[in-house]
Amino acid sequence: MAGNSIGHTFKLTTFGESHGEAIGGVIDGVPSNFQIDLEAVQLELDRRRPGQSEIVTQRKESDTVRFLSGIFDEKTTGAPIGFIIENENQKSKDYSHIKDVYRPSHADFTYDKKYGHRDYRGGGRSSARETACRVVAGAIAKQFLKHIGIKVESFVSQVGTIKLEGDLTNISIPKVENVIRCPDANLAEQMIDYIKDIRKQGDTIGGVVFTRIIGVPIGLGAPVFDRLHADLGKAMLSINAVKGFEYGSGFSGVEMKGSEHNDVIQPDGSTLTNHSGGIQGGISNGELIYFRVVFKPVATIMQNQDSVNSDMEKVNVEGKGRHDPCVVPRAVPIVEAMASITILDHYLRNKMTQI
Amino acid sequence: MAGNSIGHTFKLTTFGESHGEAIGGVIDGVPSNFQIDLEAVQLELDRRRPGQSEIVTQRKESDTVRFLSGIFDEKTTGAPIGFIIENENQKSKDYSHIKDVYRPSHADFTYDKKYGHRDYRGGGRSSARETACRVVAGAIAKQFLKHIGIKVESFVSQVGTIKLEGDLTNISIPKVENVIRCPDANLAEQMIDYIKDIRKQGDTIGGVVFTRIIGVPIGLGAPVFDRLHADLGKAMLSINAVKGFEYGSGFSGVEMKGSEHNDVIQPDGSTLTNHSGGIQGGISNGELIYFRVVFKPVATIMQNQDSVNSDMEKVNVEGKGRHDPCVVPRAVPIVEAMASITILDHYLRNKMTQI
Amino acid sequence: MAGNSIGHTFKLTTFGESHGEAIGGVIDGVPSNFQIDLEAVQLELDRRRPGQSEIVTQRKESDTVRFLSGIFDEKTTGAPIGFIIENENQKSKDYSHIKDVYRPSHADFTYDKKYGHRDYRGGGRSSARETACRVVAGAIAKQFLKHIGIKVESFVSQVGTIKLEGDLTNISIPKVENVIRCPDANLAEQMIDYIKDIRKQGDTIGGVVFTRIIGVPIGLGAPVFDRLHADLGKAMLSINAVKGFEYGSGFSGVEMKGSEHNDVIQPDGSTLTNHSGGIQGGISNGELIYFRVVFKPVATIMQNQDSVNSDMEKVNVEGKGRHDPCVVPRAVPIVEAMASITILDHYLRNKMTQI
Amino acid sequence: MAGNSIGHTFKLTTFGESHGEAIGGVIDGVPSNFQIDLEAVQLELDRRRPGQSEIVTQRKESDTVRFLSGIFDEKTTGAPIGFIIENENQKSKDYSHIKDVYRPSHADFTYDKKYGHRDYRGGGRSSARETACRVVAGAIAKQFLKHIGIKVESFVSQVGTIKLEGDLTNISIPKVENVIRCPDANLAEQMIDYIKDIRKQGDTIGGVVFTRIIGVPIGLGAPVFDRLHADLGKAMLSINAVKGFEYGSGFSGVEMKGSEHNDVIQPDGSTLTNHSGGIQGGISNGELIYFRVVFKPVATIMQNQDSVNSDMEKVNVEGKGRHDPCVVPRAVPIVEAMASITILDHYLRNKMTQI
Repeated sequence: MAGNSIGHTFKLTTFGESHGEAIGGVIDGVPSNFQIDLEAVQLELDRRRPGQSEIVTQRKESDTVRFLSGIFDEKTTGAPIGFIIENENQKSKDYSHIKDVYRPSHADFTYDKKYGHRDYRGGGRSSARETACRVVAGAIAKQFLKHIGIKVESFVSQVGTIKLEGDLTNISIPKVENVIRCPDANLAEQMIDYIKDIRKQGDTIGGVVFTRIIGVPIGLGAPVFDRLHADLGKAMLSINAVKGFEYGSGFSGVEMKGSEHNDVIQPDGSTLTNHSGGIQGGISNGELIYFRVVFKPVATIMQNQDSVNSDMEKVNVEGKGRHDPCVVPRAVPIVEAMASITILDHYLRNKMTQI
Repeated sequence: MAGNSIGHTFKLTTFGESHGEAIGGVIDGVPSNFQIDLEAVQLELDRRRPGQSEIVTQRKESDTVRFLSGIFDEKTTGAPIGFIIENENQKSKDYSHIKDVYRPSHADFTYDKKYGHRDYRGGGRSSARETACRVVAGAIAKQFLKHIGIKVESFVSQVGTIKLEGDLTNISIPKVENVIRCPDANLAEQMIDYIKDIRKQGDTIGGVVFTRIIGVPIGLGAPVFDRLHADLGKAMLSINAVKGFEYGSGFSGVEMKGSEHNDVIQPDGSTLTNHSGGIQGGISNGELIYFRVVFKPVATIMQNQDSVNSDMEKVNVEGKGRHDPCVVPRAVPIVEAMASITILDHYLRNKMTQI
Repeated sequence: MAGNSIGHTFKLTTFGESHGEAIGGVIDGVPSNFQIDLEAVQLELDRRRPGQSEIVTQRKESDTVRFLSGIFDEKTTGAPIGFIIENENQKSKDYSHIKDVYRPSHADFTYDKKYGHRDYRGGGRSSARETACRVVAGAIAKQFLKHIGIKVESFVSQVGTIKLEGDLTNISIPKVENVIRCPDANLAEQMIDYIKDIRKQGDTIGGVVFTRIIGVPIGLGAPVFDRLHADLGKAMLSINAVKGFEYGSGFSGVEMKGSEHNDVIQPDGSTLTNHSGGIQGGISNGELIYFRVVFKPVATIMQNQDSVNSDMEKVNVEGKGRHDPCVVPRAVPIVEAMASITILDHYLRNKMTQI
Repeated sequence: MAGNSIGHTFKLTTFGESHGEAIGGVIDGVPSNFQIDLEAVQLELDRRRPGQSEIVTQRKESDTVRFLSGIFDEKTTGAPIGFIIENENQKSKDYSHIKDVYRPSHADFTYDKKYGHRDYRGGGRSSARETACRVVAGAIAKQFLKHIGIKVESFVSQVGTIKLEGDLTNISIPKVENVIRCPDANLAEQMIDYIKDIRKQGDTIGGVVFTRIIGVPIGLGAPVFDRLHADLGKAMLSINAVKGFEYGSGFSGVEMKGSEHNDVIQPDGSTLTNHSGGIQGGISNGELIYFRVVFKPVATIMQNQDSVNSDMEKVNVEGKGRHDPCVVPRAVPIVEAMASITILDHYLRNKMTQI
């Protein structure tokens, strides 16, 4: 059983390799008769696009989405939305030097062993390029969410040891994103400088993306296995380079007592505190949903590394190419996309709870 | 769409409320013609059972599983395994005092709002009693995993601020579990004392369960959405009281550089380090898989708390009953069960990768 | 991947063998807060029960359903409904004589080859006893359908060559079913006499069940693969002994011209004719839905037959036991159940079509 | 929940409208490391293509498939295969005259009511043009089936009242198909003449496609709901214009006695007769699988018809355009495709039956 689909009612299936003909996807279960802003979709893609600033990879890809179906006269028809993003210049490059090399902490080794044959050009299917398709679906989901009053906001809260402290659930987010996508201007500056420094070292660094979802109505989530946070967690963990997920009090909850952690319900239905992260028993309680996603440092570094080839002989992997020194600035729109897909999916699922 | 099933090929569906007639489940996709040790299943249930030690809830439930189908002459037939665990004395108690009360950080409020009607006795469907069914399915999965050389081991690595430090991937686990299920005898003693103290305060405390999976063959996991760690993460996040999941380097990876984090592959296919946690590109690489799951403090405390009733009027919730001061000792077999189900599911899925 | 579930939103999973401990099932996705009449469920089971008349098997089984979860204070909670039907006296009989025999046109041979191990007692999982679980779920679905104004009516339209002619979409159905469940009293008499004669011969005979579904709103069905009639067809073909399905004009449509077959739409939205069978483009159009299901003659006959044993040696299979000479009278509630499950599933799915 | 996917392990998702930008699909679960003959795929598409003979629609579409992913160096990688077929000249035509008209026995009315908005150009999503995507996936499935010794053969067995009699399970099929795709040359001539005559009348006629599947190993099919014939039936019923499905003895089985219908098993595992149609208990028994699919007459006729518009006012629908007078010659490759997808899906599913 393949694993290229996510969602049950609002469902995305993606295809495509980083250097194949094109990447793309099918979004099924899109509610019909809804006005779609196609430019807004492209704007989200631009937030993920390579080459947008000096702290991300300098590869040139325009990442222009072409919609093939499911939208007519600017409105959804209820039929599946098929779309593609052409891979530009995918044939121009010579990949023979990495053809038989298993790069450290990449998926080269595991793909080769699992499938017996792989598209080695630029990572093939394991490349984060695939996430562009998620951004397309997420951008469409976002428009539905906006319509029903839900807003998904992600930002960078940590790069290396540089960390945004305090209560992030109500921190003010500037209208114009800076290149690192951290809402604190001073800290953003430090992060940017640090990443530039890391890049100069030919190295990479990890980061954390914080997300808050505002306006989620009470009742989303499908116990017992499809708890809302379980599906959010899976969506996040399915993003390249993610190593962990926590919501509400998260890992810090281990040190808390029940008497501290419990969120007292008020007569207006809100809670005094929100250690639950807006979800109780797997179901949204109307409070703000928030969670953290951690990204490991990018595996491609500009340094020589030991490794093996497909004959399992020792080789030296040369560090070259144009890659991200830190993945989080470009990860922000991806995290928002996956959160939007998950929330919309559960919103639609919840419509069947009562007859 | 309901959410009471997990797994695609080896698939568990559970039903039942804490104080209904019985809880139970159906396991579908069980490979046929396999000798099952039914006593071993009951032994796993006993590890989760209430009343097994002085640091867990003192409720009396025998939790005896009755198998109804799918096993004949002690071997699986390939037909679904149906099973039930009767709820003993479920009618004996008066629940009218909590009928209309929404307890803080429980699912009372969200279930009532979502479903418009709920079984309020002992938490109903939202009770962790449901996890007994997961242990049954997990115990069966474990027997298949053992047959193919895979071993799942979980233990408690933290209670409150008492934390097992160092490399947990090769820490020695004693044959006989202590009551807190922490492999370090000294630390176990501290944890037990601390939990006793917490209970005396009428309070509860959080904890962390560490899991390692040994012997997973190369190739399990289904990119891009059903990455092995994404499905493990979802399985863990679907357990009551879990607030976070991290695998491999996890949240500590944020502070690492790529040059430190990358796992160099050796000619024998193993890696020098294992920050990847045994999974690369969502596919197992043959190394040890390890992850951490964090549990919040149990919401039921033996203290009076402010809350509201179903008319949204302020009420005082009295702390009474028999509950766990810390969930992690009983969570260990549940985490092992969910890990076993997930790994077996992906093992079977992987059989279709090549024709 | 196992195949013991049907439906996407209203979803039934069954388990159980004819002579195991019990059969049962889980119904997930049941809309919450709905009053259930449990006696009505048992009445449907009684319509399928063995021993109810002289033209069906004389086996004695009370087929009493026990509900374990999902219903509280007589109303659905939205949690899955688990139920079991105990197999009475399942241990009393000696099955050693059929243990190694592959009966003609039974599933003995195929189950043994596929699974390598089978429960040979009374057909095991391949026994039509499993359909009792479908009747339970169908009886619950029916109550929801009644609430939204939909009525499912099945009856026997043919036994051997004795056939109900004319327009069956508006034939009057008597309030009290006769034992063959054919609405025409004269024809019913002929059918009953014929079946008695067939039974005296130690033989069996095929039949056809006609179904009409009244009051289905416009819009049910999910193109392109989950067309309403495709899902109805699959549901019917999944019933034991079914060999064919046709809806609307069905096989007779092959001889019709488009100018005859086309259903002209009227200003009130109804159609002048209904060769479409109430479904156009896979979506219900508000007209009556009708279809036919054909059942082969029961494979168990009271005659000696040639066959082979599990060593593939020729053997003689003796005709004995208590079996149905014709399956259709007891098939009527099963067909209604599967139709009800399918229609309710699509009714719920359709709630997500527009936001 | 949308319905644009079929299959569980080998899974096709399609998208696209007849006059949108392009149609296409994603095939997920394609076994890796398998040599694909892309020309053979195009040849299958050519068998379905409009304009291929004088008895089918004279529309001009080249139907050239473009593969975007999942195939590298002519071999499958295990990643999903994305593909598109561009719609040529889709913008050139004026559809305003049918914009608000509901054509009789088309899906115009039901799509409009269900979705509230539809792509009315040429039928949009409800057009049989979508089936071209099925042929692409089916052609790939066929290559895997050939590799494991399975052959799917469909042909036209009836047009109107002109019917191929006798045992069709071993009728000889000529290497070169005639334009009606009926293996009997004389009957083919009659069918062709009859269709020409029907077209002159501005009318259309129904037909039957017979299919036989040779070489299916014992053991495919997943009881109880995913019986092999139930999934074949659903696959067939999901094809445009199909009104019925029967396998083995089918509807003729109603008149047979058990003693006639039972297939006696021989010591070599074969059966003396094959009324079971190669499937017993929902599982293939190694014998030839055969079934019939009936297609209604095409709804688009070259005659004026009464109907209504979207304001539910009476209108006259003019008969014009280029359409098929009989759908079956072009349906043959579609039926083969859907059968191939279903059999391969179950072949892969069966790999998980035993560990």
